[in-house]
Amino acid sequence: MTGIILTNARLATMIPGGEPYGAVTDRDLAIRDGLIHSLPPRNARPPALADWPEQDLGGRLITPALIDCHTHIVHGGNRAAEFELRLQGASYQDIARAGGGIAATVAATRAASEEELLAAALTRVDALLAEGAALIEIKSGYGLDRDTELTMLRVARRIAQERRVRVRTSFLGAHALPPEFAGRADAYLEQVCLPTLQAAHEQGLVDAVDGFCADIAFSSEQMARVFDCARQLGLPVKLHADQLSNLGGTRLAARYAALSADHVEYADEADAAALAASNTVAVLLPGAFYTLRDTHLPPLDALRRHGVAMAVATDCNPGSSPLSSLLLAMNMACTLFRLTPEEALAGVTVHAARALGLHDCGTIAPGLRADLAVWDVASPAELAYRIGINPLYQRIFAGKP
Amino acid sequence: MTGIILTNARLATMIPGGEPYGAVTDRDLAIRDGLIHSLPPRNARPPALADWPEQDLGGRLITPALIDCHTHIVHGGNRAAEFELRLQGASYQDIARAGGGIAATVAATRAASEEELLAAALTRVDALLAEGAALIEIKSGYGLDRDTELTMLRVARRIAQERRVRVRTSFLGAHALPPEFAGRADAYLEQVCLPTLQAAHEQGLVDAVDGFCADIAFSSEQMARVFDCARQLGLPVKLHADQLSNLGGTRLAARYAALSADHVEYADEADAAALAASNTVAVLLPGAFYTLRDTHLPPLDALRRHGVAMAVATDCNPGSSPLSSLLLAMNMACTLFRLTPEEALAGVTVHAARALGLHDCGTIAPGLRADLAVWDVASPAELAYRIGINPLYQRIFAGKP
Ligand SMILES: [Zn+2]
Ligand SMILES: [Zn+2]
Repeated sequence: MTGIILTNARLATMIPGGEPYGAVTDRDLAIRDGLIHSLPPRNARPPALADWPEQDLGGRLITPALIDCHTHIVHGGNRAAEFELRLQGASYQDIARAGGGIAATVAATRAASEEELLAAALTRVDALLAEGAALIEIKSGYGLDRDTELTMLRVARRIAQERRVRVRTSFLGAHALPPEFAGRADAYLEQVCLPTLQAAHEQGLVDAVDGFCADIAFSSEQMARVFDCARQLGLPVKLHADQLSNLGGTRLAARYAALSADHVEYADEADAAALAASNTVAVLLPGAFYTLRDTHLPPLDALRRHGVAMAVATDCNPGSSPLSSLLLAMNMACTLFRLTPEEALAGVTVHAARALGLHDCGTIAPGLRADLAVWDVASPAELAYRIGINPLYQRIFAGKP
Repeated sequence: MTGIILTNARLATMIPGGEPYGAVTDRDLAIRDGLIHSLPPRNARPPALADWPEQDLGGRLITPALIDCHTHIVHGGNRAAEFELRLQGASYQDIARAGGGIAATVAATRAASEEELLAAALTRVDALLAEGAALIEIKSGYGLDRDTELTMLRVARRIAQERRVRVRTSFLGAHALPPEFAGRADAYLEQVCLPTLQAAHEQGLVDAVDGFCADIAFSSEQMARVFDCARQLGLPVKLHADQLSNLGGTRLAARYAALSADHVEYADEADAAALAASNTVAVLLPGAFYTLRDTHLPPLDALRRHGVAMAVATDCNPGSSPLSSLLLAMNMACTLFRLTPEEALAGVTVHAARALGLHDCGTIAPGLRADLAVWDVASPAELAYRIGINPLYQRIFAGKP
């Protein structure tokens, strides 16, 4: 059975350790059965591929399809009114009094039907796909009650049926305290969060377990309880860690061999060493840094020094990062965090795959999924350099344009 | 002869002085011959319009079409390599030695054919149009010799033939000194800049005259010479003023009753008063502020206090603002400059029209051009709130979708 050969393209394989971007310029890309079959030399095609049809890509650039490894893309309502109020001079107290903040999104998410949540999320998913994404992580965490958390996860799964995209879900019951449990975090974990995790897992809705470790959310001791439960269920964990201050979240994540520690603005050298030792990916979220006008940079030099893999994601959420563009997240990672364009592209491909515990995508190599993006650019650096323009020529998902 | 009636929409007319956003919810929008004919009451349609066909917009939002009043969208090459070098740790000297900076764009623009410049610019123009823009200002200034400056302006004019968009050109011969005139600014003005302005004007290629008043470009005395020449030709002026320090550029612009003073990060209270007195628009360019990681905000409170109209534009250029999204410029104006979403939308509609000296667009009112944008949003604040997503439902140019 034949496949197809993509010819006359430059490849950024993103395989670490060799040329910048894992660049390959003298080979074609053969695809069969949804997988990358081989990278045959352009000028010495193996006889076995002689009758495969070709697609000439006119010198364009092929990268692995993009991966958004941290999103809250399923949510009810939006917070444009709060955005406007704040810019009109309202204080955070004013906004809280008006029912704003995460409580507003919890209320809107609980009030929305499953179909409404799906339709709204798809508008944002489509924006990601239009820029060449093929894999999106989606968290629960705006329900904070059993039914709505389950609904959010079902919507996440349905997105993968409605669109040609893979979805990985994260249960984020430990995102915030719902109003009905104000001041009773342990009771919320006991009575709602952990039983809902159990139920969601039984329904096959959970790929990983996430939490928000912060003064305004859960302590590291409370998160450890959630992680212990995840461990019993055989689920990998990840954590919103050290975004606003250092509460030991990054070290906790490392202690549980988390897939990723996310945000990590306030992590320090010892935290970076711990991530390296546990092989945990640091997920950088420059959209939240930008929107919150944060000034405290993640410890990039320490992360580099210790060889911690750095992913980049949108954090797509209605409050601190209403961002639906991975290209823009890449530009922000460069402009605000001083990542190199190559680090930024690795952050949304090879390292993003690792942040989701996946080994079948994120680079261009034989045997991996043929999830690819073809770009109208002269160099891969252009992907992070330009702002507000989409040079995608073609998205290839499971081998099919 | 009949026109068409857009019905079941909310209107943000952007007419100042009344409701926020000039909001109108109980009227339809009648269009004829490319112009806004009237805003008939929804429930009491005038008999004269009884047989006009209707388009039901399903409750969507109509705003004036967007206007980008400051771009360098015609240019050769890109500066992705320089962007990458800098993030890899190269100093500005390293980059200058490698032929980087504006000199790189001048060399690439001179080397490009007219067709190449047009094709490259159209990719960026298309990104603006996809977000509902109908009017784009385009500057010369990367030729810095007679032939290339004229070519850039011809390309700008051709964009309005190739796409359904209006273009206003600005002659920016006084953008920088070309290498062949290093250290001889007056000679450049005398021998190249002013004669080229004259020639371009004779060929009907110039709608306004712009300049860059800065330590690294031209002094205010030199800019005054250019402006005197513009005045003799009957052309309005505008100025890149006080971006990096206060050299008196804003006051110079006011003294010449400029259409706009652009950037104005270092303008002060007296400058704001001068702009108000001369009815000059302040054009804010947050994309450059973001890309350069600037921290010195424009004097927003002073501009507001003196009632200076504030426009917002992309500054689309290959170095300091490789930005091709007005929606993102609006978000940056809010996030970085603390404009309200209403000020940001006024900045790309009513005030942007004024910055170009136009009175036939920028608001929704009878007799104006029917250049409109229809959006899938619940409130106009959403346009500035979301990042990296395009809620445009339909662009209407001269009355036609
Ligand atoms: Zn998050
Ligand atoms: Zn400019």
